[in-house]
Amino acid sequence: MKGFDDKFLDYLLAEQLVPSVFKGEFGLEKENVRVDERGRLALTPHPIEFGNKLKNPYITTDFSESQIEMITPVCYSIPEVYNFLENLQNIVSVSLKGEYLWPQSNPPILPSDEDIPIAEFGVEGLEQRKYREKLAKKYGKKKQLLSGIHCNFSFSDELLLSLYEKFGHGRLFPEFKNNIYLKVTKNFLKYRWLLIYLTGASPIIHRSFGKEYNDFCRPVDDESYYYQSLCSIRNSQCGYKNQEEFLISYETLEDYTGEIQALIDEGKIENASEFYSPIRLKTSCKEGGLNRLKKEGIGYVELRIFDLNPFVKNGITIEDLYLTHLLMIYCLLKPNPDFSKRDQDFANLNHDLATVAGVYENSKIYNDAGKLVSFKEEALEIFMELEDLVRQLGFNVEYLTDIIQTAKEKVMQPEQTYASILIKAAKKQSYIGFHMQKAKEYLEESKANEVKLIGYGDLELSTQMLIQDAIKRGIIFDILDRRENFLSFNNRIKKEYVKQATMTSLDSYSTVLIMENKVVTKQVLKEHNFKVPLGENYDELESAKKAYKKFKGKKIVVKPKSTNFGVGISILDDDFREEEYNRALEIALSHDDTALVEEFISGKEYRFLVIGDEVVGVLLRVPANVQGDGRRTIRQLVEEKNLDPLRGEGHRTPLEKIVLGEIEEMCLKSQGKSFEDIPRRDEVVFIRENSNISTGGDSIDYTELVHDSYKQLALEAAKCIGVAITGVDIIIENIRETRNETNCTIIELNFNPAIYMHCYPYRGKNRRVGDKVLDLLFGNGYN
Amino acid sequence: MKGFDDKFLDYLLAEQLVPSVFKGEFGLEKENVRVDERGRLALTPHPIEFGNKLKNPYITTDFSESQIEMITPVCYSIPEVYNFLENLQNIVSVSLKGEYLWPQSNPPILPSDEDIPIAEFGVEGLEQRKYREKLAKKYGKKKQLLSGIHCNFSFSDELLLSLYEKFGHGRLFPEFKNNIYLKVTKNFLKYRWLLIYLTGASPIIHRSFGKEYNDFCRPVDDESYYYQSLCSIRNSQCGYKNQEEFLISYETLEDYTGEIQALIDEGKIENASEFYSPIRLKTSCKEGGLNRLKKEGIGYVELRIFDLNPFVKNGITIEDLYLTHLLMIYCLLKPNPDFSKRDQDFANLNHDLATVAGVYENSKIYNDAGKLVSFKEEALEIFMELEDLVRQLGFNVEYLTDIIQTAKEKVMQPEQTYASILIKAAKKQSYIGFHMQKAKEYLEESKANEVKLIGYGDLELSTQMLIQDAIKRGIIFDILDRRENFLSFNNRIKKEYVKQATMTSLDSYSTVLIMENKVVTKQVLKEHNFKVPLGENYDELESAKKAYKKFKGKKIVVKPKSTNFGVGISILDDDFREEEYNRALEIALSHDDTALVEEFISGKEYRFLVIGDEVVGVLLRVPANVQGDGRRTIRQLVEEKNLDPLRGEGHRTPLEKIVLGEIEEMCLKSQGKSFEDIPRRDEVVFIRENSNISTGGDSIDYTELVHDSYKQLALEAAKCIGVAITGVDIIIENIRETRNETNCTIIELNFNPAIYMHCYPYRGKNRRVGDKVLDLLFGNGYN
Repeated sequence: MKGFDDKFLDYLLAEQLVPSVFKGEFGLEKENVRVDERGRLALTPHPIEFGNKLKNPYITTDFSESQIEMITPVCYSIPEVYNFLENLQNIVSVSLKGEYLWPQSNPPILPSDEDIPIAEFGVEGLEQRKYREKLAKKYGKKKQLLSGIHCNFSFSDELLLSLYEKFGHGRLFPEFKNNIYLKVTKNFLKYRWLLIYLTGASPIIHRSFGKEYNDFCRPVDDESYYYQSLCSIRNSQCGYKNQEEFLISYETLEDYTGEIQALIDEGKIENASEFYSPIRLKTSCKEGGLNRLKKEGIGYVELRIFDLNPFVKNGITIEDLYLTHLLMIYCLLKPNPDFSKRDQDFANLNHDLATVAGVYENSKIYNDAGKLVSFKEEALEIFMELEDLVRQLGFNVEYLTDIIQTAKEKVMQPEQTYASILIKAAKKQSYIGFHMQKAKEYLEESKANEVKLIGYGDLELSTQMLIQDAIKRGIIFDILDRRENFLSFNNRIKKEYVKQATMTSLDSYSTVLIMENKVVTKQVLKEHNFKVPLGENYDELESAKKAYKKFKGKKIVVKPKSTNFGVGISILDDDFREEEYNRALEIALSHDDTALVEEFISGKEYRFLVIGDEVVGVLLRVPANVQGDGRRTIRQLVEEKNLDPLRGEGHRTPLEKIVLGEIEEMCLKSQGKSFEDIPRRDEVVFIRENSNISTGGDSIDYTELVHDSYKQLALEAAKCIGVAITGVDIIIENIRETRNETNCTIIELNFNPAIYMHCYPYRGKNRRVGDKVLDLLFGNGYN
Repeated sequence: MKGFDDKFLDYLLAEQLVPSVFKGEFGLEKENVRVDERGRLALTPHPIEFGNKLKNPYITTDFSESQIEMITPVCYSIPEVYNFLENLQNIVSVSLKGEYLWPQSNPPILPSDEDIPIAEFGVEGLEQRKYREKLAKKYGKKKQLLSGIHCNFSFSDELLLSLYEKFGHGRLFPEFKNNIYLKVTKNFLKYRWLLIYLTGASPIIHRSFGKEYNDFCRPVDDESYYYQSLCSIRNSQCGYKNQEEFLISYETLEDYTGEIQALIDEGKIENASEFYSPIRLKTSCKEGGLNRLKKEGIGYVELRIFDLNPFVKNGITIEDLYLTHLLMIYCLLKPNPDFSKRDQDFANLNHDLATVAGVYENSKIYNDAGKLVSFKEEALEIFMELEDLVRQLGFNVEYLTDIIQTAKEKVMQPEQTYASILIKAAKKQSYIGFHMQKAKEYLEESKANEVKLIGYGDLELSTQMLIQDAIKRGIIFDILDRRENFLSFNNRIKKEYVKQATMTSLDSYSTVLIMENKVVTKQVLKEHNFKVPLGENYDELESAKKAYKKFKGKKIVVKPKSTNFGVGISILDDDFREEEYNRALEIALSHDDTALVEEFISGKEYRFLVIGDEVVGVLLRVPANVQGDGRRTIRQLVEEKNLDPLRGEGHRTPLEKIVLGEIEEMCLKSQGKSFEDIPRRDEVVFIRENSNISTGGDSIDYTELVHDSYKQLALEAAKCIGVAITGVDIIIENIRETRNETNCTIIELNFNPAIYMHCYPYRGKNRRVGDKVLDLLFGNGYN
């Protein structure tokens, strides 16, 4: 059975369909047990932050209460699915309190069988609980703790429809598609031994797992040992398998479903999920049982052979995913194999042989003819065919060839397999020691990346944070318009549409229109007797310019009627000249058709973030500034300050870079300074008058320092406008004094307040604003 | 007492305070009884459209159920208050069904006393009802039907504060202000005879009023007569007066309130409102009684002497208002007069003399010394002083001098007074005949102006309509930002903020964001299984251009992701060339950063206006077009069609002018035509492909012709987006057929639908959309 199904390959090449071959849908499901600091299975409940484990589609538990399962949604490329898995890994890791994700398929230090907690599901999940209790009895609890990664995969409809167009021969598309997947499945089962060899990473077992130590075992440390030559205990006969080897037919979908149904009917297994095959056929609907599969046809396949790879944070390398994908394409393009019970027997034997091929120099494998031949040679032949395939398809050739080369080296030098390297490392450090070091390393990595949602760097930071919090509690998100940061969130009870993290259904249109218009906002606030700055509005530059005399000698703020983020705002000191005044008006009027000229209120301006009935954060924003060192110019100091990775552009980082523009120049000029001046050591030079983070300001959390009466004021102001989510800017003389009628002034209400700055302030505590927004949208707590 | 208070005048001139002299606050209250077509008092209830008469601040009833009272809010100029009165007049007139506003102070044909309906106020207004029953008993019902205009006036605070600054002499400002108004009041009482003479317009009475015919009477017709030489029955001894002449002190506010209180305590009058003085002192708070007046001081004065002027629709001329204002300034600048009881007696005698001065050649009047002197000479002296005043103040000199000149002529030639002219006209036509002709004329005038709200022409038509409907049912409106058509509406229970007539609190922010984004809207509609046009979105011009092949040969629509009013939309026929396609993309992408290319759905596009749970109007919009006459070019035909006054620019008229721009040129080109072609007689040439009214289309009402199932569809689509007010555009193959899955397609949901086009369609019925919006905001019906 060498070579390819030339009909398919020739057609794909002739019709330039190669790009569609490399498209597909990908999903990953990864289990990790939770451990304490010393590598003992955590006996604590599944963290409440992850919501209802029956409903969270991203984060749930598998068999045990201590076994977290992370599930990516359907993704459309390998990097996408890999990034999502990494995000799940980060989100879960940083949410655990004093616990770690155990980065190994084989269990950590286990308590006695009766102390291993089976997952709790409450009254809604009695079925699930009962099923797990049955499994515990049948297979033992400890075996259930063996963890791994499942990879869901389907070819693109584009590819399948193209093939159908040419090779459908009058059959219906679903039938054609079923047959494609059945062929792929058979080939996968046939060639899986190679993947098991390459990815196997569970050779060591801890004594507490309870397996007998025998002649084949060798110690790693006082408590752990490995089976000689076994690269994957999880995939081996000692792993998690059905009690007998069930051979079923893959000739038609009817045969497949019929024979599994027969196993159920005979009481050998409880349901289709208990048929532990290395590859499983699935309907496109996740919840579909056997009947549904038979009726609706095969939607995708689930590959179940991957051990957790303890050498990488994500538990699997992206290269192994690319290799697996390539192998799936290989399985599609190979001829449809014979797959009699005998063929299956040989494939299963090869599976077992692969699990023990890891350390033997001269491992054997059964060939198509049922003869034991050299493992290496058989593997090299497949690699040759894969290389040939990559060359012919001519897609991503260099990268994929490199991956094949690396795999080839693992076959040629078994000491380079994950299993071999792991045994060496564990011997040096101990089994628990090595894995706990990795677990801690990975947690630190996750913490360092806490701010970001990988693969979503084009979204605003506030939106990234909201998505993270949604994933954590299991609210399904969907990006409707990336550029606009427009998303839907769905907790399966209702769907909410959210733009830029804070623009929601909670606010009415008219409320937003009021806040968009600073003139109207002031009017409404004044009507409700809030103290606001005195001032005038001008529709025309000329009449505004004429009012110069009126404001002369007073410190004033000139701003456009309706922009956010401090854009177009100038602050003029009481000795401002007419030219400065005119220029400030021109700037304001270039942003809106109305300019506001207001008295400048002295005092510090605090941002109160109101979410519903709560002030969730209070920030002092300090205008963009640098601190002198007596040596460098202001320009150089700014350049250095901008190097901070927390400073970026366009609200994708917690702080913004300081710009050296016209307004900044005016600000320095009013202090008799320029960009080229050298400030004294420790001298703080302010480069803007306004304190917005978006113009380079620093954010300092004051939530617990500010007197409660001001929080009350912010809530009252929000209430009078009728707004649910808003940033209220208040100038306060002394935050420790109780508010009175004169010691504070409301400057503005912002309808799209940046929430990230309350989560990652320059100084202070994370106020978890995303969670507050979700609470307000979907009800308090975790669904 | 000739001349002025030079202190005041010199100061005002020296300090250039003249503009503040001419500022002030103005309000008008006008009564008209309702009559049937034949001039008989209407016995129907106050129209339900005007809501609860206890709560409607603009339109209510006075004594009788048949006596409508129109009340302007406080206005800041004479034109403003005059326009508002005209709007009230128009709104009330067109709302009456088969009835008219009687344009005369003296009553129309009255039924017997017991049949005159006293105003009903329901359970909430038992007090008001009781009070009117008492008045009916005391003065007779018929006298209560004498109607007139009250003019509320106050000087600007700017002026009063300037005077106070100079002449306050340590007193408190309220006390100073009280003294100013007391002086003005005394002067007004002193000089009022002139105004009564000039504005008196109620010389004739109908027999049904029940006055005895005596020697002084002369017949006008079989049913009416006039009193010789009486210009104002309403202001005369036969008019509506207290049963005895009460003389009270105007020296201090305490004296004034104290003496009125004494009258009440003695049981002579029921309350301060029953003190029927030609001028009344008021607090700035409308509801204030005597105590409040005493405590808070005088806010404004109410002038009560004006008869309805039957010669103008508004019941008073703007010139008479200017003259009155000038007289108030005169009263301010004249010295503080002696005003003993004796002086008051003479002033009251002069009042009576003025009512009978109308026809005598040698009328007399009492001068300051209590001597009877020539009416003419005394009047001319005042005119001279007024002219002198106008000249000195140097403000609006020409206009005011003309007005004085006209008044002077009425004094010199008594046959030019309203009263004289009226008697002549009524003799010719009969009293009832003349006034009914005027009443009908005024109704026609009001109908012709129904579309517009006078003085608000800068607002969008939809907003003007909403204001009209709000006024009608007594919802107080306030313009927060004129340019943005941003208003608040207040029914005294709650306040609603509305922008552009349809942007309200009823819609949530996220709903609007969905509709703003056509890509997202389509996604949401598709998810809910609505049929929408197939298509693609492009963020970049280059990738969009590359997709040319994909669309080639299909009729397509190219549009920006997020604009309204059809801006930037092109429709390309199936034979479009690549340049046309590229140009259409460029146009779309100049309006948004994403362009949509969609299949063109053939069929007619109907606009369904959804308000709450109701489709209130369905329109077919026919693309901008002209009908040929075989003679003129397309350009000429467009120019002619654009002359229609219903066509304007910027949504301030029910239809828009047709533009001859690039898109129109492309449209004609695709038909092989140009602007200079001459269409055949009756040939209809379409100048746009899209049918928006905003691009010159015609609107045709189909509300009753469209099958209900499509209305259902529009409601369902609105519901799935969650929007309360929206325009749903649906292409329908045949509006008479029941809808099915293929015969209609939803094109768009518009978040700020123009409502005016459903009220003033090119062809069809007014759907009263403003009322529907108000129903939705404030509850169904009239508050």
